[in-house]
Order: sequence, then structure tokens, then C-alpha cells
Amino acid sequence: MPDHMIHFQPIGRKVEARKGRTLLELGAEAGISIESICGSEGKCGKCRVIVRSGITNVTPLNSSEKRALDKVEQASGSRLACQASVCRGGPIVVDVPQESQRGHQRLLAAGTERKVKLAPAVRKIVLKIPPATLKDLRADDDRLIELLTEKARARMKISNGVHRYLPAALREKSWVTTVTAFRNEEIIRVEPGDTADELFGVAVDIGTTKVVAYLVDLNSGKILGTESMPNPQIPFGEDIIARITYCNRNKEGLQTLQKVIAAGVDALIAKLCATVHLEPDDILEVMVVGNTAMHHLFFGIPAQHLAEAPYAPVVRTPLVVNPGHVGLSTYPFGKVSSLPNIAGFVGADAVADLIASGLYEDEEVGMMIDIGTNTEIIAGNKDRLISCSCASGPAFEGAHIRFGMRASSGAIERIWIDPETKGVVVRTVDETPARGICGSGIVDALSEMLAAGIIDASGKIKVSKELPGTRKNRQGLPEFVLVHGDDSSTGEPITITQIDIQEIQLAKAAIFTGVATLMRKLKVKPSDISKVYAAGAFGTYVDASSAIRIGMYPDVPIERIQFIGNAAGSGARMCLRSTRMRDLAERQSRKVEYIELAAEKDFQREFAQAMFLPHRDLSRFPNAQQ
Amino acid sequence: MPDHMIHFQPIGRKVEARKGRTLLELGAEAGISIESICGSEGKCGKCRVIVRSGITNVTPLNSSEKRALDKVEQASGSRLACQASVCRGGPIVVDVPQESQRGHQRLLAAGTERKVKLAPAVRKIVLKIPPATLKDLRADDDRLIELLTEKARARMKISNGVHRYLPAALREKSWVTTVTAFRNEEIIRVEPGDTADELFGVAVDIGTTKVVAYLVDLNSGKILGTESMPNPQIPFGEDIIARITYCNRNKEGLQTLQKVIAAGVDALIAKLCATVHLEPDDILEVMVVGNTAMHHLFFGIPAQHLAEAPYAPVVRTPLVVNPGHVGLSTYPFGKVSSLPNIAGFVGADAVADLIASGLYEDEEVGMMIDIGTNTEIIAGNKDRLISCSCASGPAFEGAHIRFGMRASSGAIERIWIDPETKGVVVRTVDETPARGICGSGIVDALSEMLAAGIIDASGKIKVSKELPGTRKNRQGLPEFVLVHGDDSSTGEPITITQIDIQEIQLAKAAIFTGVATLMRKLKVKPSDISKVYAAGAFGTYVDASSAIRIGMYPDVPIERIQFIGNAAGSGARMCLRSTRMRDLAERQSRKVEYIELAAEKDFQREFAQAMFLPHRDLSRFPNAQQ
Repeated sequence: MPDHMIHFQPIGRKVEARKGRTLLELGAEAGISIESICGSEGKCGKCRVIVRSGITNVTPLNSSEKRALDKVEQASGSRLACQASVCRGGPIVVDVPQESQRGHQRLLAAGTERKVKLAPAVRKIVLKIPPATLKDLRADDDRLIELLTEKARARMKISNGVHRYLPAALREKSWVTTVTAFRNEEIIRVEPGDTADELFGVAVDIGTTKVVAYLVDLNSGKILGTESMPNPQIPFGEDIIARITYCNRNKEGLQTLQKVIAAGVDALIAKLCATVHLEPDDILEVMVVGNTAMHHLFFGIPAQHLAEAPYAPVVRTPLVVNPGHVGLSTYPFGKVSSLPNIAGFVGADAVADLIASGLYEDEEVGMMIDIGTNTEIIAGNKDRLISCSCASGPAFEGAHIRFGMRASSGAIERIWIDPETKGVVVRTVDETPARGICGSGIVDALSEMLAAGIIDASGKIKVSKELPGTRKNRQGLPEFVLVHGDDSSTGEPITITQIDIQEIQLAKAAIFTGVATLMRKLKVKPSDISKVYAAGAFGTYVDASSAIRIGMYPDVPIERIQFIGNAAGSGARMCLRSTRMRDLAERQSRKVEYIELAAEKDFQREFAQAMFLPHRDLSRFPNAQQ
Repeated sequence: MPDHMIHFQPIGRKVEARKGRTLLELGAEAGISIESICGSEGKCGKCRVIVRSGITNVTPLNSSEKRALDKVEQASGSRLACQASVCRGGPIVVDVPQESQRGHQRLLAAGTERKVKLAPAVRKIVLKIPPATLKDLRADDDRLIELLTEKARARMKISNGVHRYLPAALREKSWVTTVTAFRNEEIIRVEPGDTADELFGVAVDIGTTKVVAYLVDLNSGKILGTESMPNPQIPFGEDIIARITYCNRNKEGLQTLQKVIAAGVDALIAKLCATVHLEPDDILEVMVVGNTAMHHLFFGIPAQHLAEAPYAPVVRTPLVVNPGHVGLSTYPFGKVSSLPNIAGFVGADAVADLIASGLYEDEEVGMMIDIGTNTEIIAGNKDRLISCSCASGPAFEGAHIRFGMRASSGAIERIWIDPETKGVVVRTVDETPARGICGSGIVDALSEMLAAGIIDASGKIKVSKELPGTRKNRQGLPEFVLVHGDDSSTGEPITITQIDIQEIQLAKAAIFTGVATLMRKLKVKPSDISKVYAAGAFGTYVDASSAIRIGMYPDVPIERIQFIGNAAGSGARMCLRSTRMRDLAERQSRKVEYIELAAEKDFQREFAQAMFLPHRDLSRFPNAQQ
């Protein structure tokens, strides 16, 4: 490693280690934005990094750091990036744990996918075909297939509709023809000449709220672009149940919802293609994931039974259809594929999460949690996996919260409360004046209020003069002021009410009931869980310590929590790039057991206990209570 | 067998053997129309039958019979049905050889297909499915497929588009569901309740000129109806080459021709369904045969290369598409299948002919001839089969013949010339006054004129006073009068001109060149040919002796010629009824060798020799010259 460089891990970027600059500043130069909500005052402790090498080139621990870091942390090289600065020349290696990376960068970092060997379902084979002569009278199809069988060692079938392109594809470029094969089974395209360097696919994650599409070069595996949009079905119903109700109440409801989502995906694909001068006709495969309802609606499959016990999905098996079947304008004889579903509320997106997490190959027991309106959890290891779905509701998306909002400009996303003064520091998205509070802020709020003694284990706000910020609102309901009217963008104070807290308790209890049930089924304690894979945008932005402190995540040492970002998208891309991965997904989807939580006999009791902060049974949170 | 009955074989009908009635009259009563063109005068010898048993119950040979039948025939029980009558009580068994059966009846008799064991590609399986409960949370697809795999011993895949019908099909009739499987591979339909008794398919033979469709009950194998229409592509070109030219010259030509033929087939299917109160949606499979060009145009595959050396087809392999792919309105997730092609001019119809003939399983060498504008010939036996196509042209359909016409009302279809008086007796279609002459009449004309010495072996008409009816027309061209103006429907005499004879010579030479080439390749003589299967309408109506006498068919004993009627239609129905037969068709299509006649080095010489009547080399027609 060159001298005078500071190397930020695991991001892998280096910058010159200039004397006098803090690790936070140099991190920013290296393109990694380290978390800090106290304005580099050394108070919030969020900018914790670990100096792995070159500790002597960094200033010694100052008083702020000594306060913020415990003895063990101090001994292991932990520092506050806003306090530690470079004091001499020489190489430095700094680990930036994911929980110290700022949200937006977290998402980027989470983009670092698990590598898969490129083996896409679509591949191109260039053939020099023996011309038709009076001595060789074979039909075009036999002529092509016989040579291809020899070259590809697989006897393939020409897709219906592709035959008509054979005569031109064979003859137009002097019997040099490029064949596009799908899974070594079907010939889906024949083109004159050599077009082997054009091989493109799109991965799509259809969320209830947001649709994200990724354009992938299947020759290199590279992502050429990412586009997203709100799910265009939202006007027909905010959540899954509302959309299913819409289908039930309107004769053409299913067709309408199918058409709008297909049109949305089609628009994303057109946009992706336009930026790199491709045509949708160049897209040979689209890999789609989504929750079971989004999956069914996209493929035009009735979803009504997903809303009725026993919530059986219509389709588990992975689908492979032509674009015309769903109404996409990608290459007509190309494919639109889906990953399999597991159950009515554990869909293809959860399968993608599982693939992206690698949980299915872990030796030790781990747990993947993808928080949303429905939270999917899969726990286990290479030998056994169990899944469940928790009705966590939309509170983390800001719904039913007095000042709740989505994570857009002005949303409070980080909160720090001084345990002594009860002074509140907040950070907002885009650092504009606060307008409201989003999911990660809500979790922080509860966690910090609990730590500061503003609420008790039952969630009750203690209104008292000794607790500045606590008060009763006009309806006599206790609340806690996060931002005063003077500092908010609206001129109104932004508060957390007793009702808000109850909503969050319900949501986190739903999630922890799932966590606890899976742990019970697997007969493991929190300490047995080697890894918690936090998937999804919310899972990435939420502060893991806060999530443990309120009893939403199992009580594991913080370093066992691994953020895997939009794992559904990553998993979809992995399966787009590799048939081995999608075959694995199919096997896993059959293997993963599914627990219908509401049908568990301990469900009510488990849920009631989990309403406490962190839990009624504190033995389950040995670390959180410290 | 009951007393006093006369049993006509192979038709199998019996009537009372009333005394004094001729065999011809009793045959008519039994529903079998025995050929006779001399008006039961015992002159034409066409009504030859064989009394197999009860000869003593029939009048002795009269003078007409003694003149018409040779000693061997007389000894073997041959009789003229118009002369022999019942003289005493007692059972009689009469064989009516196919060549003595009248055209229309011939077609009926030919309708007696080779039996196949019913094993259609579509089959229905009724399932009692375990309902979804909180204890059994399987997805609908898994639930169905797991039970079906057990019942059908085949793991099938649900066709794309069918998934959406699963929830209703499972739940609407209390979890009793009928699954329609295609080839034990795909589930193409799911219906609530038990619908196993509804299983229908349609076989279609798309000829260049005529399209015939058959509705088949696939539970019983029975034909429920037959409908036909002229090929609606005719306005775009009378023959294959004209239609291909239309496609080449018009941008949307191929699409237009595809649409009109599909619309035509769709109309036939609608008509078939209406007569038995079915809907096109009840039709689960349509099996299509046709020559290679008709096949390609129906499936929307470019046919231009069929018109250019080396005439390679685009597709040999059997196709299986959805009705929407070609534009049929049968059950949308059902199938439209084709038989394979062999070569550019030996198509799926010839494969169907081959299947219908049974030639592929014969021990001894046989030959299948399907005469049309292109004549397909397949020769060989179970070990080896060779095919070719002969450009026989449209002369047999009446084209390029002065008074040529199709076999409709008033067309001369049978001719008999008294060898001594040269008096001409004709029979017309529907026995209305003569308007012209159709294919079978043309062949008879040449044969009879040759036998009567009106033309010589080179085909030259001898104009002389000793040969009544011979004359020169206004252009000084020799011709022979078949029907005088007084007897014709037009008031004009109907003649055969020297040019007409030349056209027929070209046509029959083309066919015999094929016959001779295949015999040479197989190293067989006519006497080695155990059977000639005459397929198609023309092959059924043409008089086999005449065809041999002019040197069109190989010189085999007449009883070796077997009429197999619209064998393309029969073969299509057989393959609709049985997957075994269609798999056989696929294997045979790969096995049958193809000879491009024009590329054979002896082609010119062979063709020139075959212009003679019957042939320049009379050793090839040892019997015909007698």
C-alpha cells in the first residue's frame, strides 16, 4: 500500500492522508459519507469507525471519544471519525461499519452484490451454417438445429413465431447466423451475422409502493442503469388488500391493475434503454420479483384468495412467459420470468432476498428480515429454513403517525436525545428544515426516548417538568416535542404522540412475534443467531441499535447485523445473470417452510409480550437492557 | 349367413337375393354403386364383380360376359354385374373390387380408415383435490400438480395463461376439477367439475385448391362432421408459385395469405361446431396438413425459397402453436399442430398420405401416388422409403385442355370407345349433358383412343375416314370428337385436340419419371411392386387400367392398385386421434429420403421416353401392351 494513503474499508476507496483532517472529512473525500447527527461535536457517537492499521498515524483518543466509546471498543481501535484526525504521514486502514455509513451511501454500499458466475438463461451462439444446395436439401430448421446440437451439445427447439425469420437469418449474411438460446432448450431468436456482443436483460422489483428496474449487460454482468417509479397501481389502492378489493369490486379490475403495472414496467424499461441507446427490442429477458400479490397482479392472476384464509397463492412455481403475454414491448420472443413464491405473503421478493443474503448456504443460523407493510422473515441455515410474514402495517412508512411521512426532503431520519439534558438533535433527509418524521426516525425516537427515560417499558410517556419536551396536547394526550415550531418548516412543532408510540409498538410487536416464533421453531436463542440480514430500504436506513433497543430485531451484537440493501433487486439481478441461481431459488422456494403466524397457538401471548419495550420477558434482551 | 341373402364385399352390406334382379341392381339396393358406363348393355366391362360363393344361384355366363371376360377371369368367378342375375334362392357372396365401384362411392369406401388405438394428445383427467386449509397451505399450482403427478404419473407444467383460471377451477365445484393435459406434458385447461365427456378436435387438409376439415370426437374417435371450401387464397394465385410470387411482390403479401387461409379454416371450424351445437372454444386441438407451401403460408412462414433452387423448406419439424398464433378462434390455450414436412414439394400432406397408406410398415415394396398439380410419390417398404415430387401440372384439373374443366356437373368423367365401331360412350358427373372433360375423363380418353388405334404410341392422332370422329380443326390441328354438338350442353362438339394429348403426355411423363426414378433407386421392377396406393380425389376417380395403359402408373396387376381416397385427411385424423401415429409421422418424415428429380442425371432421357404411350421402352409395360 502506498505511503500517506488512507484506505476506507469495505468500500475500498483510498485518498491521501492529509495531516490535520478528520477521518470524517477524508471519508467524504473518498466518497464515503460517514454518519454524524451532532454536527461533528463528538456527541452522537454515530460516526464510530475502526482503525485497523496505522493507529499511530491518528491523533490519540480525546475526551469526547473516551465518553462515547467503552473500554472494549477503545481497545479494539474504535474511534469517532469526527474527532480522530491524521497526525503523521504513513498508511492508515479504516473500517467503516455499515451502521456508520449514511443512508444514501448505505444503499450504494449495499449495491455491492454477492458475485455470481455469469451464466444467463439467454446466450448467443454464432454459427457458420452449410448453405442449402441441390446436394444438401435439408430444411432450414434441420440445418440450423443439427449444427447447433453439435456446437451447443443440446438439442433445442425453435420457439413458435421464430421460424419465419429463419430464411433471412441464414441467407442475409452469407450463412453466418447468430442464434439466441434460452436455457439451452429453446431458440428464441435468429439473426443474420454476428450479434454476440448484444445481450441485455432487465431485473425488476415490483414493490407495493415502488417499482425499481435495472438494466444489465449479460455479457459482462454490469448494471448499465437503474430507474424507479412509484407503483402506478397506488391510485387503485394504497396497500395489497385495497388493491385486491378493487379487483373484487370491479369487473375488469384485475385486467386494469395488470395493465397499469405492465405499462409502468414498460416505461421504466424504455427509459433504461434510451439512456444507453438501446431499443426495448434488444432486451431478451426481464426477471421480475415482487410480493405474491404484486406477482399475481403483474401476471394477470387473480389475487383475491391471498386476502382470505388460508391465504393460498395461486402460483408458487416460477413463471416464464413471452412479453406479449403481460404486455411488455421487449423482444417479442424473449422471456419475462419470475422467481417462485413461497406463500401468500412470502413472495418472489423474499426468495430474492434469501438468494441475495446467502443465508441458504450459511453453516450457522441466521435471519433475513425485510421490513415493509408486510415484513417477511426467513430464518435458519443451509439445512433448514423457515419463513413467516408479519402484518407490521404501514407505520414505518409514516402512516397512522401524527407527523409521519415518507423518507423525502425534510423527513426526520435520525434522532439523538441527550440522556441528561433531554436535548434533541435531529437530522433530516437532504438536511432541510424538518417537515415530519420517517420510519428510521420513528424507531430512533422510541429508542432514544426509552434510553432517556421519557417513556417506560410499556411505552407510556411520562409528562413532567423534569422531562423537557414532554407535554399534553389539546386532547389531553401525552406527547414529546422533537422539533419546536421555530425550527420546523411548517412553523408547527413536530411531536411524537402517545398514539404514535402505540402504533410503533404494534408494528414492532408484529415483527418480533415473527422473529420469536421462528427462533422457537428453530430452537435457538438470540445469541445463536450469527447474522441478521437487514433487507430493504427501511432495513438499511433504520439504526440497528435502535431497532434492538425497542425490541424489533433480536438482541444480537450489533456487528452481526448486515445491511443488504434492496436485496430483492440484488437477488433478481443475480438470477437474471445466472440460471444456477434461479434453479437454486426454485429449490429453495420448495424447501423453505412457511409458518402462518396467526394460526400458531402462542400467537396472542407472544404478541402481547412483544408490545413492551423491548419485551415483557427481559431475558430475551440481555444486552438491550444494559 | 341367412338364406336368400346377397352379401356385397368388402362393403359388408347385405340385401335379399331376389330372383331376376341383376347383381348391379341388387348392389344399388345394398348401397353400393357399381360402375357401368354403357348403360348395362354388357359392353364396357366396367361392372366386373367376382362371385365368391353361391355361383350356382346366379345365371350362367352370357355372350356379353364371355366377350368381356378372359378365360382366367371366367374361371375365377368374375362376372359382369349388369348381366348376371339371381336365378334361385340361396346365399350369394359378391366381391366388388374397388375399380368397379363408382367414384362417389369409392370416396366413401376410401373413408374406411386404418384403425388406430385412441390416444389423442389432449386428454382429460378429473381430480378430487384436497382443499386449501390452514393445515395445508400449498399454492394452487403445487396442490394441483402434486395430485396430478400421482394420478397421471407425469409431472406436467401449467401452460402460460392458464394459471389465472386455477382458483375458480379448484373452488367452484367443491374442489372437483377437470384438467386437460397435452401430451402428458402441459396442463392446457382447468375447469370446475367433471367435463371429461367433452373432448373434441379438428383435422384440416389445406390443399392448394380445396380445404377440408373434419370434426372428431376424441373420446370415441368418431367423425362428427366434414366441411370443405375452395382455398380462399385462390384469388391471390391459382397455384403455389403464383401465391409465392404474390408474397414476393406485396409487402404484406405473406400476412394477407396467412390471414385469409386462417379465416377460411376458422369458418370451417365454426360451421362444423354449429352443426353439433359446440363452440369453437370446445375444440382443444386442430391438426393441420397441407403441402409445404400451404403449410408455410398457414403458419405465416416465408415460402419464397420453395420456389427457388434448391427448394429448401424453412420448417420440417412438426409445429405446435396456440390458436392465437395463427388466428384461429378455437380454445385459446389449446393447440394447432402440424405434421412434419419432408421437402419443399413433399409436405405434411404426403406424410399424412404415407401414414394413411400404411406403406411404412409393409414388408414388400409398395408405392403411394398422390396426383395433383404437384404429384407426390413415396415408394419402398418398412426398411427404406424414397420420395419425390413431380411437376405434373394442372392438366388433370382441366387446365390447358381445350374443353378441360373441374369434376363438376356435366364434366365427362368416364369414356369408353368401341374398338371396332369407334363409337364413343361417355358418362358425365351428375349425368347431365356434357359440358367439358375432367381429369379422369382425359385419362380414359387417351387410354381408349390408344386402344382403339385413334392415336399411336407417340400420341399422334391419325385423321382418316376409317376412324370416325377424327378430323382437323380450323387451324388444321388434328382432333377427335367425343360428344357431338347435338348431345352437348353447349351445342358445340366436345373434342380432344392434338395439343390436349401433348399436355396429358407431359403430365403423365412427369409422373412416370418419378415412378421410374424411385423404382430405379429401389432397384425394383413393376412386378416387384406389391401395392400402388392411389391417393387423392383424382387418384380415386381415375380409372386404374386407363392410367396404366397410358403409362402413368407402373404396370402392375390391377388388383394391386388400392384407392385410399383423401389420404391426407385420413392421415391427419389418425394423427389427431393418436400421438403414437404423430410420433411415427415425425420419425418417418426424417427417414423418408428425398430425390430432387430435376437434379438426377437421367432426368431428361427418362422424361423423353415417358412421353410415349405407354413408354418408349415397352419392356416396362409388359401387360399394358397386350
